[in-house]
Amino acid sequence: MKCYLDNGATTKVDQEVVKAMLPYMEETYGNASSLHKFGQDAKATLEESRETIAKAIKAQPEEIIFTSGGTESDNLALKGIAFANKDKGRHIITTKIEHHAVTKTCKFLENDGFKVTYLDVDKEGFIDLDQLKKAITKETILVSVIHANNEVGTIQDIEKIGKICKDHNIYFHTDAVQSFTKTIIDVEKQNITLASLSAHKIHGPKGIGALYIKKGTKIKKIMDGGSQENKLRAGTENIPGIVGFAKAVEIANQENFKNMQMLRDYFIEKVEKEIPETNLNGSKKQRLCNNINITFKYIEGEALLIKLDDKGIAVSTGSACSSKELRPSHVLIAMGIPPSVAHGSIRFTLSKYTTKEELDYTINYLKEAVKELRDMSPLWRK
Amino acid sequence: MKCYLDNGATTKVDQEVVKAMLPYMEETYGNASSLHKFGQDAKATLEESRETIAKAIKAQPEEIIFTSGGTESDNLALKGIAFANKDKGRHIITTKIEHHAVTKTCKFLENDGFKVTYLDVDKEGFIDLDQLKKAITKETILVSVIHANNEVGTIQDIEKIGKICKDHNIYFHTDAVQSFTKTIIDVEKQNITLASLSAHKIHGPKGIGALYIKKGTKIKKIMDGGSQENKLRAGTENIPGIVGFAKAVEIANQENFKNMQMLRDYFIEKVEKEIPETNLNGSKKQRLCNNINITFKYIEGEALLIKLDDKGIAVSTGSACSSKELRPSHVLIAMGIPPSVAHGSIRFTLSKYTTKEELDYTINYLKEAVKELRDMSPLWRK
Repeated sequence: MKCYLDNGATTKVDQEVVKAMLPYMEETYGNASSLHKFGQDAKATLEESRETIAKAIKAQPEEIIFTSGGTESDNLALKGIAFANKDKGRHIITTKIEHHAVTKTCKFLENDGFKVTYLDVDKEGFIDLDQLKKAITKETILVSVIHANNEVGTIQDIEKIGKICKDHNIYFHTDAVQSFTKTIIDVEKQNITLASLSAHKIHGPKGIGALYIKKGTKIKKIMDGGSQENKLRAGTENIPGIVGFAKAVEIANQENFKNMQMLRDYFIEKVEKEIPETNLNGSKKQRLCNNINITFKYIEGEALLIKLDDKGIAVSTGSACSSKELRPSHVLIAMGIPPSVAHGSIRFTLSKYTTKEELDYTINYLKEAVKELRDMSPLWRK
Repeated sequence: MKCYLDNGATTKVDQEVVKAMLPYMEETYGNASSLHKFGQDAKATLEESRETIAKAIKAQPEEIIFTSGGTESDNLALKGIAFANKDKGRHIITTKIEHHAVTKTCKFLENDGFKVTYLDVDKEGFIDLDQLKKAITKETILVSVIHANNEVGTIQDIEKIGKICKDHNIYFHTDAVQSFTKTIIDVEKQNITLASLSAHKIHGPKGIGALYIKKGTKIKKIMDGGSQENKLRAGTENIPGIVGFAKAVEIANQENFKNMQMLRDYFIEKVEKEIPETNLNGSKKQRLCNNINITFKYIEGEALLIKLDDKGIAVSTGSACSSKELRPSHVLIAMGIPPSVAHGSIRFTLSKYTTKEELDYTINYLKEAVKELRDMSPLWRK
């Protein structure tokens, strides 16, 4: 049996998405910037797709800029705002639990003379709204808070964060790569200025993402060249990717998410009941419908990952982007989990294709593997 | 009949390329940074593809970095070198006939305190090697010269340019987006430090490109985040795109290019014979196998484009990236063509799918359209 439980890293492309993309590779393959019919047909599709994405977050089509993915969207949001608004101030507020695409971009900006405040989170991964308010200075130009955390699935109250930013007249960016289509994003109601979106986390193609940029926002492009994407992102538009992205958004539905949520809770409950000394990381209530992050005390997450992999079960120890780093997860550390314990954490992320049978199969081997590893651990014996 | 003669803007994706990509969307869809089998299978394919691209330009696999396309490659090459080497100097040399991805990036760098020299070209579009030598100062850190020009198809003598750069110990970047697979690129022999490549110009997918970076080159990343691509380009690897890119390179063959060259010369000769007052722009000898750029005096290129489009013939007036700008081509102007004449230029770019029948059909309507437009022109009547 093969159980792919790493949908937080990437997902299988939906058959309907593939089907939607194909005509734009071999038939309507024009360059959307070309003036002839081949180009204009591509352009029309581009604008239709833009509308689909915009609608899903209650934005206007012209507020959506296509990028090569979540990482580029985060880079554009942070660097674009920083460089365009540095005359106003050079202070950015973010959190200790952001995706590397945000934290590393913040490090880059710090090297460039910006000051960055990294907000703490509590043991469930929530930021403290009072700390946010207190961190705001006259120099603050941007607040960037991840919507649903990619490792532990905690969903921040972005409406309240947006309100605080609005009250202080500060731009608010949220990395919504994990939450997009899985929970409500309403840019108007939630006072979001910028939101990073990605296709490959929602059964769309890799290599395509978007950035929502509220009309009137002062931002600089980071990719220089042609005048594409409202002069904000140069480069030939990736029409097949964009069409696939729009299709993935179009077919995402509430039923799937309810089902994932049910399976998620089933899995969590079963692990808690059947495997001793475990701990669910992140919030139980405000949690991404497909995220399960569990610490198995006295073992190494990576050893467990390899054992499960031998049985065809794919899980992760953190985000895929930092899989090569041997340091414990910065997210779990920020949540107050000691490094030795954080090392024993595994993320299981479900998709609409995940079945109860797969989860039963996984728990079965999980029990066995955890026991085996603990039997070898000197800490467990104590 | 439909005649797509705008293959310099983008190309139809080859059926074999599509076929190669599909398994990586629905089967081997893992994240190449994941540690489990799904991820490692993707990673293995990524490295195989890297090898294919490297081999095509006689580079080492670890010298190839995948990007989202030619524009990103150009941005990474120029900004990456500029930011990493500004302590050595702040002078860059380029030409007046670069793609916007290079010229606009140079403008960005000029705003950031760098000095940029824009080399002249002669009436065929060649730079003057003596002018290049004279332009080099102690402050010069990079020379960037487009390999085959995207508008007029002139192929520079990059081996000689590379030699000059090597002799002066200066990095040499070439935008090889149009020339890749169509003419020889040998990074060792030609002393190239960086070369921008793109998939969608060679029947590969949109949204994927690469940058060759010679081992030991001092360069800074421009996309911050995860540790992908040897820590030089963050973001989940676009495996289907990369596989498609590699397949496109693999199937590119000499026979196709010879055929395009023959059709190109057939078309040029026929136009010269059958339509008066035309002029071929660019070099006749050192010319991209699929590029035809002709000035039809006394008419507006855009009007001609529209007339041809009505008959299903897709051509362009310049690069697609600058199609929305009404200014005459900066390339033609640099070649000494008066703006009024430059406005009457049309680019026809062939592909391996182009047939003699399509070209005959095109010339037929071209004659008619040129005559009609000239009959309306007060200049022509004079």
